[in-house]
Amino acid sequence: MVDVAVVGAGQTAFGQHPGAMKDMWSEAVRACVDSVDGDLRLSDVDELFLGSTAFGGGQLGNTAAYLGEHAGMAGVPARRVENACASSGFALRDGWAAIASGRADLVVVGGLETMNDLTPERKRYWLGVSGDTEWERLAGLTFPGTYALMARRHAHEHGSTHDDLVHISVKNHAHALDNEHAHLRKAVPFEKAAAGAMIADPLTLYDCCPTSDGAACLVLASADLARSLTDTPVWMRGSGAASDHLALHDRPSLTTLPATKKAAAQAYAAAGLGPKDLDLAEVHDCFTIAELLATEDLGLAEVGEGGTFAREGRGRRNEGRTTVNGSGGLKAKGHPLGATGAGQVVEVFKQLREQAGARQVRDAECALTHNVGGSGATCAVHIFGRDRA
Amino acid sequence: MVDVAVVGAGQTAFGQHPGAMKDMWSEAVRACVDSVDGDLRLSDVDELFLGSTAFGGGQLGNTAAYLGEHAGMAGVPARRVENACASSGFALRDGWAAIASGRADLVVVGGLETMNDLTPERKRYWLGVSGDTEWERLAGLTFPGTYALMARRHAHEHGSTHDDLVHISVKNHAHALDNEHAHLRKAVPFEKAAAGAMIADPLTLYDCCPTSDGAACLVLASADLARSLTDTPVWMRGSGAASDHLALHDRPSLTTLPATKKAAAQAYAAAGLGPKDLDLAEVHDCFTIAELLATEDLGLAEVGEGGTFAREGRGRRNEGRTTVNGSGGLKAKGHPLGATGAGQVVEVFKQLREQAGARQVRDAECALTHNVGGSGATCAVHIFGRDRA
Repeated sequence: MVDVAVVGAGQTAFGQHPGAMKDMWSEAVRACVDSVDGDLRLSDVDELFLGSTAFGGGQLGNTAAYLGEHAGMAGVPARRVENACASSGFALRDGWAAIASGRADLVVVGGLETMNDLTPERKRYWLGVSGDTEWERLAGLTFPGTYALMARRHAHEHGSTHDDLVHISVKNHAHALDNEHAHLRKAVPFEKAAAGAMIADPLTLYDCCPTSDGAACLVLASADLARSLTDTPVWMRGSGAASDHLALHDRPSLTTLPATKKAAAQAYAAAGLGPKDLDLAEVHDCFTIAELLATEDLGLAEVGEGGTFAREGRGRRNEGRTTVNGSGGLKAKGHPLGATGAGQVVEVFKQLREQAGARQVRDAECALTHNVGGSGATCAVHIFGRDRA
Repeated sequence: MVDVAVVGAGQTAFGQHPGAMKDMWSEAVRACVDSVDGDLRLSDVDELFLGSTAFGGGQLGNTAAYLGEHAGMAGVPARRVENACASSGFALRDGWAAIASGRADLVVVGGLETMNDLTPERKRYWLGVSGDTEWERLAGLTFPGTYALMARRHAHEHGSTHDDLVHISVKNHAHALDNEHAHLRKAVPFEKAAAGAMIADPLTLYDCCPTSDGAACLVLASADLARSLTDTPVWMRGSGAASDHLALHDRPSLTTLPATKKAAAQAYAAAGLGPKDLDLAEVHDCFTIAELLATEDLGLAEVGEGGTFAREGRGRRNEGRTTVNGSGGLKAKGHPLGATGAGQVVEVFKQLREQAGARQVRDAECALTHNVGGSGATCAVHIFGRDRA
């Protein structure tokens, strides 16, 4: 199996960019190519894997070829990978395999979503179809509702409180202040977040991620090529993935995502590492309760202790063992569905190369990304490390 | 690089099955599992790659996890691959890489489309979005129109005639008579096909594939596992893929698909084989002119000689060197977009194991599948062979 490294990573700002599908993608590709230390020609790319749910933007089919062509990769084998909000996490996994198999040396992994060119009604519809249709969506359950059920159950089982969730929101908003690519860059005081407008009890506005447009782009290379392109490759040490039942009622518990646990176990085993080794983790906090559950499912907190972990601020940048969502996370950096997984890796790339500026995590050597589709129907976890001294 | 074999393959009949998304998928999985000689448990599957454009059927996001769950693969890492009509050709390519990389031993590749539960208007829309949106679809160009332009230009450049195309239609309808899974099983006399209702001049009804529902399923295994599961594995000898500009005006010619030529060159090189080695080829004949061009682009006919190849019946089953679309092809077997690429491999699997009954190609040892997305924006070509004596 050929070793694989990330040698370039770039993204647009996440935010409101309706109608800018091609422009966003070009900007992300350009930022990515500029980040490569050596000389990279897009015509040398062997394969393109694009993660997107493609529900906006105008080119709904053959989207990968369309965007490949626009960014100077016409001819390159391209495909779109769709797994709801985990689309580019899986694009990364499959791009990694193309190199690991020996078939490719140079792979571009992209993530993109155009959400804000749809009417609110169409937006709701296209978000809803990534959840369970037969039992949940058609019965009126929305994603905020789904995650509210998880929050209520976690409070019931483990005594977590809405204040615990508010701590997550406040932390991620604080982290995003230092992120030039964040959708929401404003300090949110605890009292304000605690008193947010109710969305789905107990989740308020400040528990929910925004609806973002954005694009992110990564360049992966085989070990030999990576070393010729940069002195600071970011190695992919482990990849894990899993699926699960779409509907909550088919799962044994509301307070854990089995897909996260399976994917994490696979990734840790492949990397020969565990949660204690992580200097930072970019986790899928589409809602604050999702981050709380992720800290437990990834082994950063004990089962049932996710609320305590949050309340004690153990995920705050450079305060606990592992910085959690130092970028601001989906909550504040933003969540352009298909771009989110690749965007997490952009953050990790900068952190492990010590190029994260004001939000740099000290001595960042090992990082994890956690990308979830729907309410846990799909999950991809990746572990990255820089060259060991 | 680990060698990969197809050890199981099954499909539904292609045809009108509106509203039967889950049932079709179950039927294809069951047929596939039944075709495996040894003992296969779906819970042992390492990964699921599902090709679908997912424009019908009700579960538009996280479709792969949804269908995985329904067929007893809950938990298995699953993703949907979308490349318009080439979706499952690329799913196959990426499933192959998962095994070739050493990460997986057992992979399920699926293809599925539910087209007939949409209104005609929505169907047209969802078909159209796989072509170029900005220059073609919004200006009124449909897929029949696109391929009609190619037919007219080929006639202009090389003197091919509509009668040449009629020969392709008649051949594929004749082949489908022996295929229990074909959408259209009826003998079509030359005179009838030649006098079909005009769709887009020069293409008539008999030049166009039908709008089909259907599902297909493959099981791939690593070499060692394959040998433990069957005495007659169907080896994947080569995989090639490419993309291209979506819009015709960006391409240098209307009478060749560069993506096909690139993908074929890659696949032939990987296999160490050429067109003269092929006993059968399942090619992407969404329109008869597409088969004519494919015979040239794949090297079965000389450039400009596709019309002659058709007229002389050199693709007829067991008549020329290479049987072309012995299954009936998209024209008569049917074309449920995302299922087509995997369905081509189901045919090859049966042929190379001499299980194709009345449509068996004599001494079939080497086969090719050719799966195109849009009007050539994406293409995947695969070459298969049975164990050499």
